[in-house]
Amino acid sequence: MSYTYEYPHPAVTVDVAIFSIRHDALNVLLIKRALAPYQGEWALPGGFVEIDEALEHAAARELKEETGVDAGYLEQLYTFGRPDRDPRERVISVTYFALIPSDRLEIRAASDAEGVGWFPVASLPELAFDHAEILDTAFERLKAKLDYSTIAFQLMPATFTMPELRHVYEVITREEIDKRNFSKKILGLGVIEPTGEEKREGAHRPAKLYRVIDRSKVDVIK
Amino acid sequence: MSYTYEYPHPAVTVDVAIFSIRHDALNVLLIKRALAPYQGEWALPGGFVEIDEALEHAAARELKEETGVDAGYLEQLYTFGRPDRDPRERVISVTYFALIPSDRLEIRAASDAEGVGWFPVASLPELAFDHAEILDTAFERLKAKLDYSTIAFQLMPATFTMPELRHVYEVITREEIDKRNFSKKILGLGVIEPTGEEKREGAHRPAKLYRVIDRSKVDVIK
Repeated sequence: MSYTYEYPHPAVTVDVAIFSIRHDALNVLLIKRALAPYQGEWALPGGFVEIDEALEHAAARELKEETGVDAGYLEQLYTFGRPDRDPRERVISVTYFALIPSDRLEIRAASDAEGVGWFPVASLPELAFDHAEILDTAFERLKAKLDYSTIAFQLMPATFTMPELRHVYEVITREEIDKRNFSKKILGLGVIEPTGEEKREGAHRPAKLYRVIDRSKVDVIK
Repeated sequence: MSYTYEYPHPAVTVDVAIFSIRHDALNVLLIKRALAPYQGEWALPGGFVEIDEALEHAAARELKEETGVDAGYLEQLYTFGRPDRDPRERVISVTYFALIPSDRLEIRAASDAEGVGWFPVASLPELAFDHAEILDTAFERLKAKLDYSTIAFQLMPATFTMPELRHVYEVITREEIDKRNFSKKILGLGVIEPTGEEKREGAHRPAKLYRVIDRSKVDVIK
C-alpha cells in the first residue's frame, strides 16, 4: 500500500532522552542502531509516529519497544526540523525527556535496536543524526529546571538529608554548590519539611531528615 | 504533481502567537481565515511548512505573509499533535511565540487571511482548530518566563522607572504586584542599573530611572 499527497509531506519521528543518576554520575539511555542509516551507531531511542497516534504515546511506545523502559511522564523538549537532518527524507523530530529514579533501570535491547546502554553525559560516544544537539538541549533544560522547579525530588527516596539532595544537584550540574545558599533556597520553595529525625553518616554530624510535604505538588518536570 | 510514500505521513504546520501590550492590556495577533476549514473564524497566523524549509523560517514567513509583522526572534513554544486536531488530515503543528514592543505594530491582512487584528488576551473570540489551547500554553509560558527571565525588558524603552516596569508585569499577569518585593527581585537579577536621573510623573514622588546594563544579556525569551 502507498499513500499519495498533492504536496510533499515530511516524516515525523519522536526521540527520547532519559536521564538517571548511576554510579554518582548523570547518565543517559542510548540504543545501538540495528539498521541504516547510522547502522551500528549509538542514538537516542525513538522512531516514526503512527498516523493516528498521539505524539507522547509514540514517545512512550518507542522508548518501551527499544529499551524496555517505562518512564512514566515524558516532558516534551523541543522539535528539531533542520531540512537535512536525516539522509533518507525530510524528517521532523519531536523530542521528549525525563529524569527517572535508579530503581527503574532495568533495560533490554529490543525492536530495531541491537544494543542499549547507559552512558555518562560527560563521556558520550559519537551519536547518530543530530542527536548530540538534541541531548545538549535536553541537558541544558534539565539544568535550568533544577533552578526553578523541584524536578530533582523525583530522584530522592521518601526521606533524605540536605547533603544528599545537594549531592544530586552537584552530580547533575558537575559544579560544587554552596551549602548555606542551597539549604536556604530549597527550604524557600516550601515543598519539603523536617521529619523530626536525624541521620548520621560516618564521622559527620547527624543531618536532619526531610520529606516532601505533598508528593502531588512535586513538579513532574513542568 | 503528487508525492507518494510507503507509509502515511502527516502534514506539518507552524502557528505563531505574537503578544504585545496595547491600550494597557496584553494583546495577541489573530487572523481571520479566508478559506475552509473554519472559514471566517479567527485563528493564530500560520501555515504549512515547505518540504525544504527550516521550521523557524516557516514560522517567520507565515507570520509576515499573513499579518505583515516581522517579529524578529521567535521562540519555539510546543508541538501540538492530537490526531484529530484538523478535519482535513493528520496535521502536527510546531508553534512559536514572541512578545514584541508596540512600535512594531503595523499590521495588514494578506495571503490567505481576510482580516487581521489585535485582541486582548482577556477577551478573545472563539478560535479555530485547537488554537485556544495553543494560546493558553503560550500565555502560561509567557507568565512563567516573567519569573525566571528578563523577557519583559524587551518591551521597555531605553530608560524606565521601577513603577513603569512593574506596570508591564501587572498588565501581563493581571495581578497586583507588591512594590518592595518586586524592586528587590528585579534588582537582584543584576541586569539593570540606575542612570542617575529621576523622572517625575504627576503628583508622585520622583522615581529613579534605570537602564539595562547590557542589552545583549537580556533574554530574547529563552
